[in-house]
Amino acid sequence: MSALDQLAPGEGLDAFFLAGSVAIIGASDDPTKIGGRPVQLLLKYGYAGDIYPINPKGGVIQGLQAYSSIHDTPKPPQLAILAVPMGATLQAVTDCANRGVRGAIVLTSGFAEAGPEGVALQEELVRVARSKGMRLLGPNCLGAIHIASKLVGTFSIALEQSLPPAGKVGIVSQSGNIGSFTMRNMADRGLGVSRFMATGNEADVDIADGIASLAQDPDTHIILCCMETCRHAERLITALDMARRANKPVIVLKIGATEQGQAAAASHTGALMGSDAVFDAVFRRYGVLRAHSFEELLDLGHATALLGSERLPSSNAVTLVAASGGFGIMMADSMVQAGMTLPQLAESTKALIREAVPTAGTNNPVDASAQMSARPDILLKMLTALQNDESRSTLVLLLALSLYNPRLRDVYLEALTKIRASHPDRLMVLISQGPAEAVAQINALGIPVFPSIPAAAAAMAGLVKLGQLNRVSIAPAYSGSVLKADESVFRNEFHAKKALREFGISVPPEAIVSSQEEAVARAVETGYPVVLKIASEDIPHKTEIGGVALNLRSEQEVREAYERIMANVQEHAPKARVDGVLVASMAQGGVELIAGVSRDPVFGPVVMVGLGGVYAEILKDVSVQVAPVTEAEALRMLQSLKMYPLLDGARGQPKADVAAAAKTVALLSEFACQYAGNVGEIDMNPVLVKPQGQGVEVLDALMIPLSRSTSQG
Amino acid sequence: MSALDQLAPGEGLDAFFLAGSVAIIGASDDPTKIGGRPVQLLLKYGYAGDIYPINPKGGVIQGLQAYSSIHDTPKPPQLAILAVPMGATLQAVTDCANRGVRGAIVLTSGFAEAGPEGVALQEELVRVARSKGMRLLGPNCLGAIHIASKLVGTFSIALEQSLPPAGKVGIVSQSGNIGSFTMRNMADRGLGVSRFMATGNEADVDIADGIASLAQDPDTHIILCCMETCRHAERLITALDMARRANKPVIVLKIGATEQGQAAAASHTGALMGSDAVFDAVFRRYGVLRAHSFEELLDLGHATALLGSERLPSSNAVTLVAASGGFGIMMADSMVQAGMTLPQLAESTKALIREAVPTAGTNNPVDASAQMSARPDILLKMLTALQNDESRSTLVLLLALSLYNPRLRDVYLEALTKIRASHPDRLMVLISQGPAEAVAQINALGIPVFPSIPAAAAAMAGLVKLGQLNRVSIAPAYSGSVLKADESVFRNEFHAKKALREFGISVPPEAIVSSQEEAVARAVETGYPVVLKIASEDIPHKTEIGGVALNLRSEQEVREAYERIMANVQEHAPKARVDGVLVASMAQGGVELIAGVSRDPVFGPVVMVGLGGVYAEILKDVSVQVAPVTEAEALRMLQSLKMYPLLDGARGQPKADVAAAAKTVALLSEFACQYAGNVGEIDMNPVLVKPQGQGVEVLDALMIPLSRSTSQG
Repeated sequence: MSALDQLAPGEGLDAFFLAGSVAIIGASDDPTKIGGRPVQLLLKYGYAGDIYPINPKGGVIQGLQAYSSIHDTPKPPQLAILAVPMGATLQAVTDCANRGVRGAIVLTSGFAEAGPEGVALQEELVRVARSKGMRLLGPNCLGAIHIASKLVGTFSIALEQSLPPAGKVGIVSQSGNIGSFTMRNMADRGLGVSRFMATGNEADVDIADGIASLAQDPDTHIILCCMETCRHAERLITALDMARRANKPVIVLKIGATEQGQAAAASHTGALMGSDAVFDAVFRRYGVLRAHSFEELLDLGHATALLGSERLPSSNAVTLVAASGGFGIMMADSMVQAGMTLPQLAESTKALIREAVPTAGTNNPVDASAQMSARPDILLKMLTALQNDESRSTLVLLLALSLYNPRLRDVYLEALTKIRASHPDRLMVLISQGPAEAVAQINALGIPVFPSIPAAAAAMAGLVKLGQLNRVSIAPAYSGSVLKADESVFRNEFHAKKALREFGISVPPEAIVSSQEEAVARAVETGYPVVLKIASEDIPHKTEIGGVALNLRSEQEVREAYERIMANVQEHAPKARVDGVLVASMAQGGVELIAGVSRDPVFGPVVMVGLGGVYAEILKDVSVQVAPVTEAEALRMLQSLKMYPLLDGARGQPKADVAAAAKTVALLSEFACQYAGNVGEIDMNPVLVKPQGQGVEVLDALMIPLSRSTSQG
Repeated sequence: MSALDQLAPGEGLDAFFLAGSVAIIGASDDPTKIGGRPVQLLLKYGYAGDIYPINPKGGVIQGLQAYSSIHDTPKPPQLAILAVPMGATLQAVTDCANRGVRGAIVLTSGFAEAGPEGVALQEELVRVARSKGMRLLGPNCLGAIHIASKLVGTFSIALEQSLPPAGKVGIVSQSGNIGSFTMRNMADRGLGVSRFMATGNEADVDIADGIASLAQDPDTHIILCCMETCRHAERLITALDMARRANKPVIVLKIGATEQGQAAAASHTGALMGSDAVFDAVFRRYGVLRAHSFEELLDLGHATALLGSERLPSSNAVTLVAASGGFGIMMADSMVQAGMTLPQLAESTKALIREAVPTAGTNNPVDASAQMSARPDILLKMLTALQNDESRSTLVLLLALSLYNPRLRDVYLEALTKIRASHPDRLMVLISQGPAEAVAQINALGIPVFPSIPAAAAAMAGLVKLGQLNRVSIAPAYSGSVLKADESVFRNEFHAKKALREFGISVPPEAIVSSQEEAVARAVETGYPVVLKIASEDIPHKTEIGGVALNLRSEQEVREAYERIMANVQEHAPKARVDGVLVASMAQGGVELIAGVSRDPVFGPVVMVGLGGVYAEILKDVSVQVAPVTEAEALRMLQSLKMYPLLDGARGQPKADVAAAAKTVALLSEFACQYAGNVGEIDMNPVLVKPQGQGVEVLDALMIPLSRSTSQG
């Protein structure tokens, strides 16, 4: 499938969305059958192009002239929907390709998800399609839909009642179920959809194609994406970058966040699973907002569609307003826990609020009392004061059950309509339960309505991120040659560090010695105190066998340590190939980091950094990113650590040289890319970060060749 | 208000729920007025007792004979609802008390929440009521309701459409708004309510009274409680213990979890705010489940009411089933993140599932495919296999939108009805959207239905906790005398530690010396290495001024250190009153804890423990509990720390003596209770926990008198 790499993401996908003619291979007169449903849906919703039911029996299908072969249609169809049994699929795909079809949707299942034979068969489908320049969606997929033209290439039961209205939300999903559930829910919320695509097994068209086609589609303003895995990392990254450049928010529900979820996903998709943390990092890097639940995807998608990219919050400041003190407290708790801030209102704003609502408490949250909704003009006066407040914060107004009350509903609708007219650029969201049409009326004003306080808080936090994401700079993908490191780097820490030093990473001077005398001479040259460490490719864990001696302050101590280390090796690792003993200066004073590289099965070389010692281990306090990273990115990685305050002068300690640490991480990530030819894993542990201006020192390092790496390649 | 302490929680509260006659003081003919609404609601819903509208004008109010004074009613009313202006409230309360009314609901606002005058006035109300044995609810409250007898003592608009059905859920809330929102939502979910009470300003009746009355009410099986603060800690604890002994699950939505929420709560209630972490600890101790949002309160309350305390999950094992692999992955992610486990099914169960649904994936999550709902008998066969599986896990079945499809709805209802009949004691929950009546039919089978995957996961985690909470043993409240410690404990660490040592806490032997010679003599007696520390009540932070010397290994080092410390004191704290220099053995090898005591404004002495150094500071990794705690509780506190693995032998270190550490924390908590007379804060930092069997050593300690304590008293 390397052929896919020659197609830009999204290339040729118009066949699935803009086709002027569609053939349904295996068409049925029975609209409950898979081969009957697309015919029925195309007819029911009024697709204006030509529909060619194909069935060996010919005749009339659902009132349309049917053809016994795709070769018999008056014109070659641009799109074909294949609903034939698995055994007949290859022939059908071949026929389509030969007839000049531009896109084929294979709904049939039983391919890669069923075992190795299915894998081989679907590879054959792709080979045939590619040979004629036809793109293939599926197999085992729910198809594609272009709402505006009613081109419904699916058998989804989510469309049984109605087609969503045409609109600006594009949806691409690997799982057909999750994708159509998303589409159904967006439509139920009154939002219009532009395009829908479910990629299924992704033998050819993949999630990156789907994202790219939405990024290129002028009708799509926001992209919702549901994914379980990624089969082509570089294509995904290219597609995300296209969306970012087109200024279209991408919101992803990536499932398989836990080990158990990943195990389920692996058995479901048959694809290799990458680390969820790496997906997270990639999303962060490319300005993609990750939803953590289906509800968050819908809430965020809905709100983003209502606000558009131009009205996203510019800061995390919110002003909270409720008619009840209790609800105000709940809002404050939820918002603060979600990372929002509650600025105080200006005194002038407070005065204006009290003018409108004398009983109001004017802290933030504003305790506006039931009085605020006594009359539309009172409410409008208060809202105007709040929207004009110099904090420019997002206004969050809680209505509880008020919309169920006809009188209150009218008060709210009148005031909200007026405030939107007078403050079209300002941001306001509501928290309310209420009848669907009242909520729809408020949505129509461009005001998102969330059903609960936690939902509003999570959504606000997400919208703030979305407002900031596009401002982040991104490291360009590695474009240099991929080399192999000298095999010596796998032999011992001396050679590993030597390679890193030559790459510009700060490693203290050190030497390998083979006798007590050499050790003493080297120690004198280095200056006391020194450390001695056994150097052997067969002893990766030196401390455990007594192969390390720290803080040696005299000739005698060096001699004793040398003897002791050699005795320990003799006892615990008699067969180890020993290169000698490493002598280095005893580094002191600083904060210890660990930094490393591993190979992600999806994204390739990944760089990791964390605080050293127990922190990384017990707290899992590490940050990862796909290599290479810029120094600025590496700095953000460091700053994202829970224990970052330790580097930033906690407890009266001097601030550590985080700039030098970031540079080291960036260099390490470049090293990983350059030597990806044979270096599988790198461990720099510890990396001593000295006080500001004094740099870092990599005190130990270990490299593992790709061939022996436990991280999947 | 100390008089309240002489009333057991719940005493006299029948007046609010079981009264056979009610007077409405300030009754109005206008049902939209506060004085009109209770009359209207009592009439509308058919309260069978006597209703006496009281209005100076007399006449007829809403069709009832009105009286110009409460003294004119045919019989003394048992309950009075006061809807008179604030200025008339004292007279009305006095009249009620004199007339022999047993309970008065003061709806009127403008008391303590409005300022000091209001505080004084409401105290006067209570004095008058108490003098005649009348209980008083409010002021500034939403009143009380006894559903079964239609005794509606409120003006809540939540009752405008309908009264909730009578049932087993009791609701008590400080905020009337939040309480009635809870009641409305429970009713909307089809759940019956027993009693409702909103306590408002709590001049007399408090939240503890409300909980206790629900604990004693045979019709109430589950207690939902919304609180912002606690005005009487001991009464709350007594009430929670009553509910626990009555085996009635208590679910609390305690708001004001963040600093900003607390600030809002303080301004809303006018009450002192206790630490949210201490509330959390008290809830944990008394088997109270804390909901973290309104939705969680409703979901947990609903599920608990459906399951009853006898069918709560006995473990955190769940078996997940969905028709789609994608939804299965999402369920696995959410459940695992909420702390649930996904056991593998037995081979025999897998075989039975495949017999029913040949296409099913039989891992956990089970990928049951759309086939499972093809026919009721297929579904029943699969559910039977799952419910019989030896894991005895809770079955979580996801239906997505199936209930909207009439055919599928019938399949599900038939199979679910049968499985409940055949497995009445087994636990199953559903995740589904759907028409309200379909959901209600499933609820009626005793099957909770959650609207989303995250809601189901949070609820399952809560239900597991609720199933385990009652098994926890509790430290009895401190019942000994409260003494004052010798004032010397505040002078320096030597005396503080001496007092702790005398209380049985392990403190290494040490002495205060006044000269180099004494220091050396003591060091020899102690054995090298030793530490020297300045002893002065004016130098609480010894290290910062150079008042500490560690790891002194010889006479010379001791002499030099002594001189250096004295010079540093002379330089940095020339006016400090110095008691001498403390000489102690240099303790080494172990894990450092911090343990301490502070004074919570609500709950009194509170004990805290955490890992020492940066952990407690940066990670806020500490555990608190109201003193005293048992050793078992102290052990659980230690085990709840994120960094607990450090005590439990992480990184190949020996396991620390956690039993001794727990004993130390328990002793410290007892010390805090016994000397609560003048000890405000205690800091033991560090507490060195040595390897198992070797005990602990408190290396430094500081006590601050209550009078100088920054924690509010």
